[in-house]
Amino acid sequence: MKLYDGGRAPNPRRTRIFLAEKGIKLPTQQIDLGALEHMSASYAAINPLKRVPALVLDDGTVITESIAICRYFEALQPEPALFGRDALETARVEMWNRRLELHLLFPISHVFRNTHPAMKAMEVPQVPAWAEANKPRILDFIGIVDRELEGRPFISGDNFTVADITGLISLDFMKPAKLAVPDELKNLKRWHADLAARPSASA
Amino acid sequence: MKLYDGGRAPNPRRTRIFLAEKGIKLPTQQIDLGALEHMSASYAAINPLKRVPALVLDDGTVITESIAICRYFEALQPEPALFGRDALETARVEMWNRRLELHLLFPISHVFRNTHPAMKAMEVPQVPAWAEANKPRILDFIGIVDRELEGRPFISGDNFTVADITGLISLDFMKPAKLAVPDELKNLKRWHADLAARPSASA
Repeated sequence: MKLYDGGRAPNPRRTRIFLAEKGIKLPTQQIDLGALEHMSASYAAINPLKRVPALVLDDGTVITESIAICRYFEALQPEPALFGRDALETARVEMWNRRLELHLLFPISHVFRNTHPAMKAMEVPQVPAWAEANKPRILDFIGIVDRELEGRPFISGDNFTVADITGLISLDFMKPAKLAVPDELKNLKRWHADLAARPSASA
Repeated sequence: MKLYDGGRAPNPRRTRIFLAEKGIKLPTQQIDLGALEHMSASYAAINPLKRVPALVLDDGTVITESIAICRYFEALQPEPALFGRDALETARVEMWNRRLELHLLFPISHVFRNTHPAMKAMEVPQVPAWAEANKPRILDFIGIVDRELEGRPFISGDNFTVADITGLISLDFMKPAKLAVPDELKNLKRWHADLAARPSASA
């Protein structure tokens, strides 16, 4: 089994944090995104969509998409449960993971990819007007998340889950996208600080 | 229990098709998206993100996000299994469901929302250049899907899953976005026709 990893990019980091929380270590090969190694023919033979991470099993089966790789290990090693336990918890984790992706991770990614000079070769063409359109939506959403976090430790309830990991990698992704969390969002800042202090955050 | 539904929009339809495949019927209330009913204060009290569908349980708990609602019912009624059975099948279904969302459903949605006159009041501002940037990516991706479908009936393997439902609602969403599948993509067209012929497709 081998994990093709992608350094500081948010999705590879999401998988690494998940594996660290599970205590799982994998043989890993770094793909250098800055050198466009993920666009090479040899990597496209592993993932025709040319994205990281990718997990290659011993029989050659390839699993891509960070959350699909996480679900694979959740099924193989259920503890600690990071996708919820019963029907309601499973649904709440999925709801929050998706809300955080659709209204935070992906919009931040749109801002980063469509404005950052380092993304010129990967995002063709860059559309700065689309980045601008996303900025107020990100601020609206983190205001909603801040109110939701009032009185609860983690985003889907009392337990740490994969949705919190998505929250952490998204909030950390705001810095290279040149976005900032307003100081008055105290619950969001407390949540971010708690997640960043877990040993898994450095994975 | 009550489902707040949204007519022809792709995500509410995804949940309805899933429930039809499970043979589950729910009390339903239609939210009129054309009249911006989802933006009303009374609906925002149910889902502050102002999107459909939303499932309200008897104790008032709200589950939003079409796939989160589907996972809730998968856990309550596991048969027929639509999210995979073992670790590998679960991972493959998640991988394909996400690939189809990230590279088909969401890009089509970007094209539709940023070009269609009916979306002027919902997508503010519309960014036509972002719609244009997405069009070639959609064509590239459906070419990859067509090659993957060679020799297999469903996108994640031998079994019909939620990833096929995402494929169906995405391909059907191309029409209002004024996009077309090239005739040479025979495997994709066969897959689409098979999915559209299932009784659930009319849900």
